[in-house]
Amino acid sequence: MKDVRSAEILCVGTELLLGDIVNTNASYISRRLAALGIPVYRQAVVGDNPERMRQAIAESFSRSDCLILTGGLGPTCDDITKEMVAEYFGLPLELNEEALERMKSYFSSTGRNMTKNNEKQAMAPVGARVLQNDWGTAPGLVIENGEKTAILLPGPPIELEPMWRDRVEPYLFERSDSVIVSKNIYILGMGESAVEDRLRYMMEELTNPTVAPYAGNGECRIRVSAKAKDEKTASDMCDELIEEIKKTEVGQFIYGIDVDSIENALVMKLRDRGLTVATAESCTGGLIAKRITDIAGCSDVFLGGCVTYAVDAKVKLIGVSSETIEKYGVVSAETACEMARGVRLALGADIGIATTGIAGPGGGTPEQPVGTVYIAVSTKDGETSKLLQLSPKRSREFIRICAATNAMSLALNS
Amino acid sequence: MKDVRSAEILCVGTELLLGDIVNTNASYISRRLAALGIPVYRQAVVGDNPERMRQAIAESFSRSDCLILTGGLGPTCDDITKEMVAEYFGLPLELNEEALERMKSYFSSTGRNMTKNNEKQAMAPVGARVLQNDWGTAPGLVIENGEKTAILLPGPPIELEPMWRDRVEPYLFERSDSVIVSKNIYILGMGESAVEDRLRYMMEELTNPTVAPYAGNGECRIRVSAKAKDEKTASDMCDELIEEIKKTEVGQFIYGIDVDSIENALVMKLRDRGLTVATAESCTGGLIAKRITDIAGCSDVFLGGCVTYAVDAKVKLIGVSSETIEKYGVVSAETACEMARGVRLALGADIGIATTGIAGPGGGTPEQPVGTVYIAVSTKDGETSKLLQLSPKRSREFIRICAATNAMSLALNS
Repeated sequence: MKDVRSAEILCVGTELLLGDIVNTNASYISRRLAALGIPVYRQAVVGDNPERMRQAIAESFSRSDCLILTGGLGPTCDDITKEMVAEYFGLPLELNEEALERMKSYFSSTGRNMTKNNEKQAMAPVGARVLQNDWGTAPGLVIENGEKTAILLPGPPIELEPMWRDRVEPYLFERSDSVIVSKNIYILGMGESAVEDRLRYMMEELTNPTVAPYAGNGECRIRVSAKAKDEKTASDMCDELIEEIKKTEVGQFIYGIDVDSIENALVMKLRDRGLTVATAESCTGGLIAKRITDIAGCSDVFLGGCVTYAVDAKVKLIGVSSETIEKYGVVSAETACEMARGVRLALGADIGIATTGIAGPGGGTPEQPVGTVYIAVSTKDGETSKLLQLSPKRSREFIRICAATNAMSLALNS
Repeated sequence: MKDVRSAEILCVGTELLLGDIVNTNASYISRRLAALGIPVYRQAVVGDNPERMRQAIAESFSRSDCLILTGGLGPTCDDITKEMVAEYFGLPLELNEEALERMKSYFSSTGRNMTKNNEKQAMAPVGARVLQNDWGTAPGLVIENGEKTAILLPGPPIELEPMWRDRVEPYLFERSDSVIVSKNIYILGMGESAVEDRLRYMMEELTNPTVAPYAGNGECRIRVSAKAKDEKTASDMCDELIEEIKKTEVGQFIYGIDVDSIENALVMKLRDRGLTVATAESCTGGLIAKRITDIAGCSDVFLGGCVTYAVDAKVKLIGVSSETIEKYGVVSAETACEMARGVRLALGADIGIATTGIAGPGGGTPEQPVGTVYIAVSTKDGETSKLLQLSPKRSREFIRICAATNAMSLALNS
């Protein structure tokens, strides 16, 4: 098979057409395809309707040589994606014994009985490559037919994303005769448009490697991608450009290369230094602890934390003094510092991280509008705090994510 | 003009095809159209490419009588949506004086000068209805041509959403004569295929109302939708069917109707009863607290919690006895119960919720593989615990989400 030259994405699901869920699969796959240098000409969504699926599949293959379909692989009679693609290629379906065995053991390992209708998920078009699904029941499929390739993946993002990473990308790599290496530069404290302004000449003039900025949740990330015959050459090309970017004004805002997230950067740094951390969260309500414990193996670094949502909890759990709260208010640098120190001492950690603020939409005042957040870090050398004044127009979710990110950044730089 | 019988959505933008942004416009518009009883047959995304747009517009109108386009209405030469639609209908563009005046006054009110290229945004096909944009510069457009209607809206969600609500819906209301009402049944403890098995006759035979199951993150949801002349009639049709579903075997697994999420169901129930809750989390690492505090205004119910990730933190923060941990182990019903009681007493809450387990991927043993989680709830009447044995093949993320959901469910039923 040759390199994939262009792709389209077809997401199947009535819940998408009804707007019950946002189509994150299309953006996820598009982003990953862009990183591989494969252009996406179209994304489409159709319901579980034979006639409309038939039409969409035929249209896509009239334009592109690869079609990625998501959803409609489940056990119900509504799930017809596989059937429609098999029909398009004129291939009969057969029971795939290996897929059936895997599904049976998956069910027995989760202590459930496999109902008869689940067998449907083990059917595959003759000659298809079955992509093992370790994150759910429906396997994925790759169907190659002449110049055309269909890749079928389960709809739930929690299955689709690891399937893409661990099954589809290795497959696409096999087919390709060049490799693309991407590296990500993580930035906090400089907005996307400012970053773009400083790096515009690179973005506009370079074609290999390329530079692209991405923004989201108050953070910014720059992706550097290089295409070459082998991985080492592509990787070196990226590194060279990253060194150049570090020398610009952007350099001082970089908190890591390929660190994945600020929580991961923090855990790695603390581990390197043999330090432990504890959290005391008010407005972020457990989000910092949740994000740190998203990382497998964080237990050598993270001892625990308190979610001191009610005022009283701050006093009872981590010994914030009632006088401090009375004098300076719950949302204040002083309270944030006492929280950070309190949780550090209560758990015997090297570093304490704290947040207290107003995430909204209610609770704002003229003096302290929604978006006012104090973050603090405590170490044996004392406390540091910082006021974040986020826009009151921002969502509760954004304010909480941003507060958590900045609190971890303060700890990273402490 | 007649009622809109069916619609398609075409979102224009290279940033969507690159996966740089998630397409929230498509889900927003679809949700609002569903509420109006207008079926959406397809959503599509194309780049700012004349040939591909031309093809997408023609395809859509071959299937549907209404096409909603978003994006590509800006001042740059890349913005060609309006031009392509005008071309499809064979209508020339003319300068709309009213739109031009509004745009001039918008610019002056934001203290900016209007550059010449902005005038392009005031051009409209002859006979089009201009939708005033009070949230940005590019006005929207409605173009009616025979049986076909095109609705053009600006791409940024911050402009699109109010434009839809305040400009497009009043227009569609003038044209429509029926509504669809949907209600969601939330289920925990019964898988999607088992649910489908029990309700197959409803799913296959009913056309109005309809029944459709959705699965994700270890939960299941059934959506019941009815179409009628007015909202009351459609709502009653849904209620009747929901009562019927409650009488089936599925009934005992229902935890709420239109409750949005288990955390929301829990907060609402506790609020109704005037009760407060506190959390002690080990393997879920703050996720329960995070999910509860995702809900604005949860502070009347949620006092706070502890993330007792290290063994020592369980003893220090919430007084779990070292003997219990030594005798039964950290991952045990006894430790879970002491954690739930400990945090309840420490914070003076009515209910304590606790989790302790092995989220993986490391840390499993032959006796306690990854996926072993104890959840517990404590009230003044004592403690209840439950063992969850999730598949060790599941991701860390899934195990944590599932543990958190089940712990909240145990509290909901306490």
